[in-house]
Amino acid sequence: MPAARGRLFGLGVGPGDPELLTLKALRLLRGVQVIAYAAPEHGDSFARAIVASWIEGHQREIVIRFPMRPGRPPIAIYDAAAAALAGELDCGHDVALLCQGDPFFYGSFINLFTRLADRYRIEIVPGVSSLTACAAAAALPLVSRDETLAVIPATLDEAELARRLGDADVAAIVKLGRHVAKVRRVLDRLGLIDGAIYIEHATLADQRVAPLACIAPEEAPYFSMALVRRNRSHACRAKSHG
Amino acid sequence: MPAARGRLFGLGVGPGDPELLTLKALRLLRGVQVIAYAAPEHGDSFARAIVASWIEGHQREIVIRFPMRPGRPPIAIYDAAAAALAGELDCGHDVALLCQGDPFFYGSFINLFTRLADRYRIEIVPGVSSLTACAAAAALPLVSRDETLAVIPATLDEAELARRLGDADVAAIVKLGRHVAKVRRVLDRLGLIDGAIYIEHATLADQRVAPLACIAPEEAPYFSMALVRRNRSHACRAKSHG
Repeated sequence: MPAARGRLFGLGVGPGDPELLTLKALRLLRGVQVIAYAAPEHGDSFARAIVASWIEGHQREIVIRFPMRPGRPPIAIYDAAAAALAGELDCGHDVALLCQGDPFFYGSFINLFTRLADRYRIEIVPGVSSLTACAAAAALPLVSRDETLAVIPATLDEAELARRLGDADVAAIVKLGRHVAKVRRVLDRLGLIDGAIYIEHATLADQRVAPLACIAPEEAPYFSMALVRRNRSHACRAKSHG
Repeated sequence: MPAARGRLFGLGVGPGDPELLTLKALRLLRGVQVIAYAAPEHGDSFARAIVASWIEGHQREIVIRFPMRPGRPPIAIYDAAAAALAGELDCGHDVALLCQGDPFFYGSFINLFTRLADRYRIEIVPGVSSLTACAAAAALPLVSRDETLAVIPATLDEAELARRLGDADVAAIVKLGRHVAKVRRVLDRLGLIDGAIYIEHATLADQRVAPLACIAPEEAPYFSMALVRRNRSHACRAKSHG
């Protein structure tokens, strides 16, 4: 009789502060034989760094390396990663795939989930997402009562950004990184730039919160977001606080 | 010299599974002198139940009771609760206000935050929100790549619901409770009902996931949500799974 297949856990490890790991993610992380995570072509994995202090030497690690070019990573990388995970699961090993933030909130894990979900037992462990982490960092209540929230990737083109931002009570502009100039232009035209708060590296030691109007386009790192509320103005003063 | 003022922590305690508490929320919860939370007029607090096993006898508790009538709770309740918290903080006591899910994602905590933020040190500890907990429960990737997400309260009127749902790549309809009939009607008209998944009590033992088309209006409890994706169909079969 073949051994039982292993289980795959999509583990949300939160936005960056290692203390924002959940008790459940910690328990599962410590119980698996194999830990997998994404990393840049050269360099360390952010998701792994978040939980590094909990990883014990005896666990095997699978690193899924992505090129740092903009745009979609090659399908071949996801195919190869899915095959590597499937190999472990077929051998009866439980695997934790570490996902920064939440696995299903713009996570590259989704590309592995869709490849493996019909063949393997997968459990998703939700994590604290960058969305609420950024709101907390900015001390900006996100949504209450009858308010709607629009989550909008900055990668959209200018017309589409304008259309969606123009209609939102509250908007979270994710994937801001290289798109600050475009986003500032659109918000300016809509008269919303003074209501836009910029957050980078939320919950980490180098967290920064500032009015988006004060952020130069070349400053924003990949992990940055803007939160926009109608009828709210943020003067261009204190440029950061921890 | 007067004693230093206490600190107020807005503690996200996650969607319901006690294991989805973060390490940070747990540490702060155990360190405060006073724990505060909302509860119905008669009955237990959901937020307190989530962390009950971690509450030690020596901590004082402040219960903020709300009437279970629909609509906005009276302003007087928030004013009195803010005064009670301020009294503790003025005495130098640290206070943890327990918030189910995330404090800034439709949390009633926001009404206390706005009353106290200019006078006291408040730290928001983000939690796992119902949004990603429901996506995980439904095994439904929420958003990826260039997709936009609209979070829409079911309390909006039919025209506004239709307008916002008609424009969303992915929509999360929150506060579904008493509004199932209206929401089903709108999604039906938009041709989106077959792409709508219903989730109640996500991450709890009595979690239920089913196509929204199979949910009778009187069935939905307060803690329920619908997730809607374009071009996705959920047959009205398995009515629940844990």
